[in-house]
Amino acid sequence: MSDTEKSIRVPYQRLKSEFLRILVKNGFSESGAEKCAEIFTMNSCDGVNSHGINRFPRFIKNILQGFVKPEAVPSLIHAFGSLEQWNGNLGPGPLNALFATDRAMELAGENGIGLLTLANTNHWMRGGTYGWQAAKKGYVLICWTNTCPNMPAWGAKDPRLGNNPFVLAVPYKDEAIILDSAMSQYSYGKLEVLKTEGGTLQFHGGYNKTGELTTDPGEILESWRVLPAGYWKGAGMSLLLDILAAILSGGRSTHQIGGCTSEFGISQVFIAINLKSLHNFSGIENSINQIIEDLHRSKPENPSEIIRYPGENILQKRKDNLEKGVLVNKATWENLLKI
Amino acid sequence: MSDTEKSIRVPYQRLKSEFLRILVKNGFSESGAEKCAEIFTMNSCDGVNSHGINRFPRFIKNILQGFVKPEAVPSLIHAFGSLEQWNGNLGPGPLNALFATDRAMELAGENGIGLLTLANTNHWMRGGTYGWQAAKKGYVLICWTNTCPNMPAWGAKDPRLGNNPFVLAVPYKDEAIILDSAMSQYSYGKLEVLKTEGGTLQFHGGYNKTGELTTDPGEILESWRVLPAGYWKGAGMSLLLDILAAILSGGRSTHQIGGCTSEFGISQVFIAINLKSLHNFSGIENSINQIIEDLHRSKPENPSEIIRYPGENILQKRKDNLEKGVLVNKATWENLLKI
Repeated sequence: MSDTEKSIRVPYQRLKSEFLRILVKNGFSESGAEKCAEIFTMNSCDGVNSHGINRFPRFIKNILQGFVKPEAVPSLIHAFGSLEQWNGNLGPGPLNALFATDRAMELAGENGIGLLTLANTNHWMRGGTYGWQAAKKGYVLICWTNTCPNMPAWGAKDPRLGNNPFVLAVPYKDEAIILDSAMSQYSYGKLEVLKTEGGTLQFHGGYNKTGELTTDPGEILESWRVLPAGYWKGAGMSLLLDILAAILSGGRSTHQIGGCTSEFGISQVFIAINLKSLHNFSGIENSINQIIEDLHRSKPENPSEIIRYPGENILQKRKDNLEKGVLVNKATWENLLKI
Repeated sequence: MSDTEKSIRVPYQRLKSEFLRILVKNGFSESGAEKCAEIFTMNSCDGVNSHGINRFPRFIKNILQGFVKPEAVPSLIHAFGSLEQWNGNLGPGPLNALFATDRAMELAGENGIGLLTLANTNHWMRGGTYGWQAAKKGYVLICWTNTCPNMPAWGAKDPRLGNNPFVLAVPYKDEAIILDSAMSQYSYGKLEVLKTEGGTLQFHGGYNKTGELTTDPGEILESWRVLPAGYWKGAGMSLLLDILAAILSGGRSTHQIGGCTSEFGISQVFIAINLKSLHNFSGIENSINQIIEDLHRSKPENPSEIIRYPGENILQKRKDNLEKGVLVNKATWENLLKI
């Protein structure tokens, strides 16, 4: 069966209304469901089905398991100057993260920079969502999350680190230049999508069960031995991000989160910076334009390629999916209709 | 000639006094020379000769070229809430970074978090120096620098990105857990050391002049085509770090810094967080201990190895070098005596 036969295009609003229906059925308020459905739809629309439609059934399962509490909202634990520590109260990760980003921007509006931490929150789906949220309002966002133990330390066989996605976002032409990067070379979401499609990885992505490096996503999903991005570098950064998420939030660290089949109650950090508070604010747009123009002048290894900034490809995908309908797996769509 | 014959052990104070002598001779004040000599000596003592004795002659050359102004100190450009933008006035990079870290901690002391940027500064040598400085006083430090263009974007042949070292530091047992990581898989300093020693890289570190991946450090030093850590991930993060350094400081971006033989007037960002301002301050030490104990329980691939946290190996090297004398290249030491 070809990729085209396995895929279907669903109009944006049609996809969103299906998410909405299921969220309301599962205990979400109208406004919570609206925001959450928008995030899942936009993730698929941006081509990140791994944290859109593909992940949605697991999100609902986590609600039924009691890991995610649909109506819970964050509560303030402690405030000091430009920082605030909040309890996520096991609310929906995407809603908690939306709130945290907004509040971090408010703190940055007052103080130039704002730090907000969430203890006891849940998977935020795609970290880039919050980067775009901040960048579209003119703020820089630096944020990260810890996860369950899903990656071995460098030189180790057993997963004790998380792959702890890290986001850096900067406003650019009403959109964002955005790094949204797990500390593993490939995210589990990417591995799952590739396995479903029957594809292989361009580079080694982890080890198989017998300890050999492999490009087969299915073998890595079996072994739980993903390769850290940059070997010891990604592993080291992952450990630091976990320590920081845990101590800055007062929440759980990766080893306390435990098994990945029941990941909940995780820790997140959001740092917003208000560009308007800088002396050079009026020159920032021009400064970024020049950097991107210089990047675009790169000589590509493959003459038919254009060197792009992180986030640039997504804009084209988003446009296509908005015009033609969001490209999703046909079976996944049909299963969604039955939830 | 064996490694032992090429190397020599120089007592810490002897090495430092030589740096001091040369710094004072080249226009440093007594107190500036003292701080700067301490940094170069400690970098070598920690086993990072690439940013200690090996780099020192180039530092002096940069003073003679007028790139580094020995007596210049930072001046405040703009302050808003918890952030400050300073002009490094082309002062010595290590002294400017020491100052910036201290001032970022002061801002964090008042507001929980502090952001300080430096425009128009110079190479800080080893970023870890400032991570340790903050961690030893109980602060978290997140800092980074841009560099001259020394790394191609992912898929490109010509170096338009910097390798922009990034530091995350957390206090731990009166020392630090510390990530100090260039965005290239290997730093140029590491490549230079390995080339001198006649060694090869464990993994591909870049491309040779004919565009093939190589583990030969000399070939990469010729081509200027280092491999980004994690391929597209390190390249993407490098671009974001450069944009942030340039726009937050109002200083120069990598493409403006231009040629690597005349790297000066770079941009840096320092974010300090005051752990004492957190509601869970009293539990932080225990929380970090537990994370490290869990890491140490990792099953190593090679049974004779112990899985360590970033910065752990350095403590042993430091102890050895303090006891036995700092291990340096004999020829490099003899050349130093002639400056």
